[in-house]
Amino acid sequence: MQLAQIGAIGETGNCRLALSDEDTQARNLFAGWCRDAGLVLHSDRAGNMFAVRRGREPDRAIVAAGSHLDTQPHGGRFDGISGVLAALEVVEALNDAGVETDAPLAVINWTNEEGVRFAPGLLGSNWYAGAIDDVTLDGIRAADGVGFADEAARSGWLGVMRPADLPMDSFFELHIEQGPVLENAGVQVGVVTAVQGLQWLDVAVTGMDGHAGTTPLDGRRDALLAAAAMLVAINDAGRSEGSEARVSVGRLVPATDGPSTIVGAVEFVIDIRHPDIEVLERLQAACTDQCQRKAAQYGCTAVVSRRLSVPPREFDADCIAAVQNAADELGFTNRKIASGALHDASNIAAMVPTTMIFVPCRDGISHNIDEYASPEDLAAGCEVLLHAMLSRAGLS
Amino acid sequence: MQLAQIGAIGETGNCRLALSDEDTQARNLFAGWCRDAGLVLHSDRAGNMFAVRRGREPDRAIVAAGSHLDTQPHGGRFDGISGVLAALEVVEALNDAGVETDAPLAVINWTNEEGVRFAPGLLGSNWYAGAIDDVTLDGIRAADGVGFADEAARSGWLGVMRPADLPMDSFFELHIEQGPVLENAGVQVGVVTAVQGLQWLDVAVTGMDGHAGTTPLDGRRDALLAAAAMLVAINDAGRSEGSEARVSVGRLVPATDGPSTIVGAVEFVIDIRHPDIEVLERLQAACTDQCQRKAAQYGCTAVVSRRLSVPPREFDADCIAAVQNAADELGFTNRKIASGALHDASNIAAMVPTTMIFVPCRDGISHNIDEYASPEDLAAGCEVLLHAMLSRAGLS
Repeated sequence: MQLAQIGAIGETGNCRLALSDEDTQARNLFAGWCRDAGLVLHSDRAGNMFAVRRGREPDRAIVAAGSHLDTQPHGGRFDGISGVLAALEVVEALNDAGVETDAPLAVINWTNEEGVRFAPGLLGSNWYAGAIDDVTLDGIRAADGVGFADEAARSGWLGVMRPADLPMDSFFELHIEQGPVLENAGVQVGVVTAVQGLQWLDVAVTGMDGHAGTTPLDGRRDALLAAAAMLVAINDAGRSEGSEARVSVGRLVPATDGPSTIVGAVEFVIDIRHPDIEVLERLQAACTDQCQRKAAQYGCTAVVSRRLSVPPREFDADCIAAVQNAADELGFTNRKIASGALHDASNIAAMVPTTMIFVPCRDGISHNIDEYASPEDLAAGCEVLLHAMLSRAGLS
Repeated sequence: MQLAQIGAIGETGNCRLALSDEDTQARNLFAGWCRDAGLVLHSDRAGNMFAVRRGREPDRAIVAAGSHLDTQPHGGRFDGISGVLAALEVVEALNDAGVETDAPLAVINWTNEEGVRFAPGLLGSNWYAGAIDDVTLDGIRAADGVGFADEAARSGWLGVMRPADLPMDSFFELHIEQGPVLENAGVQVGVVTAVQGLQWLDVAVTGMDGHAGTTPLDGRRDALLAAAAMLVAINDAGRSEGSEARVSVGRLVPATDGPSTIVGAVEFVIDIRHPDIEVLERLQAACTDQCQRKAAQYGCTAVVSRRLSVPPREFDADCIAAVQNAADELGFTNRKIASGALHDASNIAAMVPTTMIFVPCRDGISHNIDEYASPEDLAAGCEVLLHAMLSRAGLS
């Protein structure tokens, strides 16, 4: 709640865009807490922060946990932040109990997860995992022209550490669910098994504009009507693939905006997600097919092109088991769940054993000032994180 | 084509917004032609222009014809203009033939038909027909704050004539069809029987926004999906009412624009038209019902409100017969047709016997620089106009 006062919007909202003055203030406050807990801070070219707690065997690879401190422009107090602070809480609990682990531990704050100020999102973990090289990273600019590297330097958190300098054994990310599944199921802990794969299809529908009063319904090539029929059809296609399938249209732009003009062209984006690559590809084919069918039915043409494709990411079986065992042994109600949203953990999972812990959030709301997770649920997630990390780090 | 050089866009386009410098130039060119033809010009408080040809019985009510010289911002060379110039051509043909009519004739240019610079459209004829009073007329301003009365004065065409000063026997408006019906039917002349009634329904759909990756399809309240289902359903409702029914959505505005965000609210406008008031009301009820049903089906709510309602206007049976007889006797292929668009003639029909003559336009295109009507079809319409006016004005 102290952190949430930086960049506050009203009582419950937060705006801390990556490497803004507010993000820097939040980083500095977090860094102070880390130092108070006896941790040593490192940072890298992407401004990612690593707060390391020595282990009994200092040369072992670190067991890490964390998430991100940046927020959406009208974001809340929990998305990302709860994962960073849960990791810090784990360390503080061990300090309080006087417990030393065999492997070192680290609390991580990944830079620019939200991707609002700098694109793409998940930027810090993308660079860390090698998906973005140094030249690309340094060349990234905000919409107002400000350079990422300049802002990282200005924040004071531009560092020189390389991933190889601090070998990582495993990574755990606690995060609010951002969906209603756990709440609806009435369970406290989500054991995350995978991150859904994602495809974005750009659809351009072309018909012919015309006068709404003079053109008979049978003679029209109404691109907005065709697009509407596509939306209904692809939703049906999504429902036919079961409860894990997601098919959404959140951007739809008619070429004209006049009540008396038949719309001659429409562009929209289909967001398709599923944890199984085969189903994802099948959904993509079904959506493309439905767009073509509906275009033909309404005298239009449709061009469907794939803009973005992120394969599903299955998390590490041992890490998942560590979380599952911790939740079971601590007596928290839990269930397995695939993440519908992308997270930094998706990137890190390409490098080292990784998984996530989901905490229920009220009404499934996130990226919103009404975002809320209860102290009880956050504490449960935190305890699970502690025991999962301990099982990995060892107590000899 | 000489007139089309004023405010030209490329080879075939025109931009002459009402009372702009370009409209004033066009008015002055037209006025010169009228004076060359021996006509006497009058204008009124709305800047409407009346070019009068004396009759053998000067006190008889005038037989008038005309349309408008203003255009859409990316308009063509025919919409409106062809009706004014056809009326002038009628007068010039009578001059050339040395024919004097019993009743006086008048060529009319109505101000601001398009309604682009000043709202509402059909402004000059609305004021003339008493639908807008003097105070309202004088208070009308363009989006940039410029007053209608000031611009009318600046153009030099602000006059003092009142409708009662120049009693009107009847009014004929030749116009391009703005639809594909005549072209598809392969006929040269449209005998216009009525102007369709029009209703605009504002529909506000409310659901709940959410994350496209995390919210299961079954748990969504997707306002854009609900709106899409409404568009398909109201189109079906329109088709069930036969070939004269028009149901269109040309404005649809989602409240958010992000590919990964389920849209929580959408607003759109339904444009409904039919020449029969009973069918129009039935279509309105059917559209409202479908919006409510689809809202419920997709977990949303819909508020449907009527923004605009213009009843159908049936034209005068005698005037229609005059046009029909002229077309038949001249041997032009023709058919009866209802106007899908509103025209100045709709307003004048509330005062005096009125009808319209439609000329085919290529591909039904209007309000577009590609708008085109052939010289042959325009000449045919002009001949019909001449004979219809003569039948009304009398040759004793």
